[in-house]
Amino acid sequence: MSKRESLRTAEERTWIGVDIGGTKTAVVLSVRPPAVLARVEFPTLPEQGPERALELIKKTIHELIRRHGEDVGKLEAIGVSCGGPLDRVAGIIQAPPNLSTWIDVPIRSILQQEFSLECRLENDANAGAIAEHRFGAGRGTQHMVFLTMGTGLGAGIIADGRLYHGASDLAGEIGHVRLTRSGPTGHGKAGSVEGWASGGGIAETAQRVVAVAIGKGIPTSMARLAVNGTLTAKDVAEAARGGDKLARRIIRNTGTRLGEALAILVDILNPEVIVIGGLAMRMGESLLAPARRVLDDEALAASARACRIVPAALGEEIGDIAAICVAMGF
Amino acid sequence: MSKRESLRTAEERTWIGVDIGGTKTAVVLSVRPPAVLARVEFPTLPEQGPERALELIKKTIHELIRRHGEDVGKLEAIGVSCGGPLDRVAGIIQAPPNLSTWIDVPIRSILQQEFSLECRLENDANAGAIAEHRFGAGRGTQHMVFLTMGTGLGAGIIADGRLYHGASDLAGEIGHVRLTRSGPTGHGKAGSVEGWASGGGIAETAQRVVAVAIGKGIPTSMARLAVNGTLTAKDVAEAARGGDKLARRIIRNTGTRLGEALAILVDILNPEVIVIGGLAMRMGESLLAPARRVLDDEALAASARACRIVPAALGEEIGDIAAICVAMGF
Repeated sequence: MSKRESLRTAEERTWIGVDIGGTKTAVVLSVRPPAVLARVEFPTLPEQGPERALELIKKTIHELIRRHGEDVGKLEAIGVSCGGPLDRVAGIIQAPPNLSTWIDVPIRSILQQEFSLECRLENDANAGAIAEHRFGAGRGTQHMVFLTMGTGLGAGIIADGRLYHGASDLAGEIGHVRLTRSGPTGHGKAGSVEGWASGGGIAETAQRVVAVAIGKGIPTSMARLAVNGTLTAKDVAEAARGGDKLARRIIRNTGTRLGEALAILVDILNPEVIVIGGLAMRMGESLLAPARRVLDDEALAASARACRIVPAALGEEIGDIAAICVAMGF
Repeated sequence: MSKRESLRTAEERTWIGVDIGGTKTAVVLSVRPPAVLARVEFPTLPEQGPERALELIKKTIHELIRRHGEDVGKLEAIGVSCGGPLDRVAGIIQAPPNLSTWIDVPIRSILQQEFSLECRLENDANAGAIAEHRFGAGRGTQHMVFLTMGTGLGAGIIADGRLYHGASDLAGEIGHVRLTRSGPTGHGKAGSVEGWASGGGIAETAQRVVAVAIGKGIPTSMARLAVNGTLTAKDVAEAARGGDKLARRIIRNTGTRLGEALAILVDILNPEVIVIGGLAMRMGESLLAPARRVLDDEALAASARACRIVPAALGEEIGDIAAICVAMGF
């Protein structure tokens, strides 16, 4: 999976992966098994509309093909991984929350026309699930859930060894499930799993908790950022690592809520493993230990025992590998 | 699916289905597609231990084979449908709540030895899911959930056209999922879906509500039964049909809680249809209408739109057909 710049035989088939996030977009060129030959990254800047990023994606793919001409054998397909909602079959991105100006972007036909290549589209939680199932922490399992814990919270479900899409490609929206009558908002719903256990939710909770702490004169390293209104989940993670007690409590509470969500997934899906990406990789056991405790209390004992809770194994590479998996048609 | 007593050709293959419930056990003889040639039913009487019922099951199967000798061609297999927990692969019934004396009963080997026939075991929610998917309200769908709403509440999941078992045959335990911090108890958990939205939960709630009503002098046709402590979900359904306002409110509230459970299933599984058996067939729209309203409020709009909520179509026959489906290895 490491970057390889060595010359490839002309017979070797290659794939293009495009990982479109709210902050950055990455375009990668890969051989099988996912082994990145080249990678270009640029800011997505969704506030400027999709046209600029789409032009950059096309330009970058052309550039990668030109630059690695002698390495590139038969170019097989392009895979795009992107936040939902989207129409996977028609290949249309339908205004994901983190790309709010990307309204009904027919990315599949745009890229197919430009490159005369098959182009496949998949939402990032599903693409991440495939990547972790094939090449990460879920390798060798038949029943797996992948949770992507970024600004939002989504899940990709592997059932009987295959990605489960549901009736309208909307399976896995555990982030929308209600945990409490009220609470922090996520997925447009106060008290939802995404409200309680996502980067956005952590930031919202931290903002509120730190404001109270400041009022009460309780010291916290997060005070300055909270006053600026720019406190993020990353800041909370950093403060916790630095020993900030309030930050640690916020992460512990988030782990507790995450555990409630895991219990719902375990009771309904009885998976062998739940792989958690994003914040879980950064926060590690400070998040996962309380989550596991709640899971053991809340889920059916036999189902909880059957299920491992582990951080994603592909680390920062997961977006690249996920997009390549989509291209490869896994 | 109607009872057929006509002579069959000797070439026609036949199956035995055994549906073991907490109240009654049915043994049926069937040809393909499920068409019951003969049926015998007797009380299970779990309080007397499993031996008596097991002897009766064996005796009844022998009798059915003897009695329908000329109708029976090649006897293919025996299918047993029964409440969980059970070890499907080993064929062992492991003390289901409604058969509390049936502790580790190796029913598969018992019946295989007796009849030198393949014997398959499946829990009743999964067997019901297969039956409704193949021959009932879920026909033609790829993604379906079957909810069995009896004394307890269980689910069978059809994913991509096939029954989904999970890692240890425990998938579908929506009844164990928590809706509230406290509340009526089901599946050993106060405030669970089974506590709020099952026959047992309705009886528990009704008992409490009617006691309060009696104390306040509010008239209800359920008063006498509540005083005796014998109020059941069936009584509540009957009282509601008779116009009892309190009974109607209890069913409406149960529908509301059922709707919360449906929303969780819809957000996570995005099914085309949720088929509800047991009480839903008896209570109909008085239960399902409020459930659908909550589903529309609580679940992702696009997923709720994609999912029909319907009562089971196989009616009282569902247990027979389910056991036969297990025998047929669907």
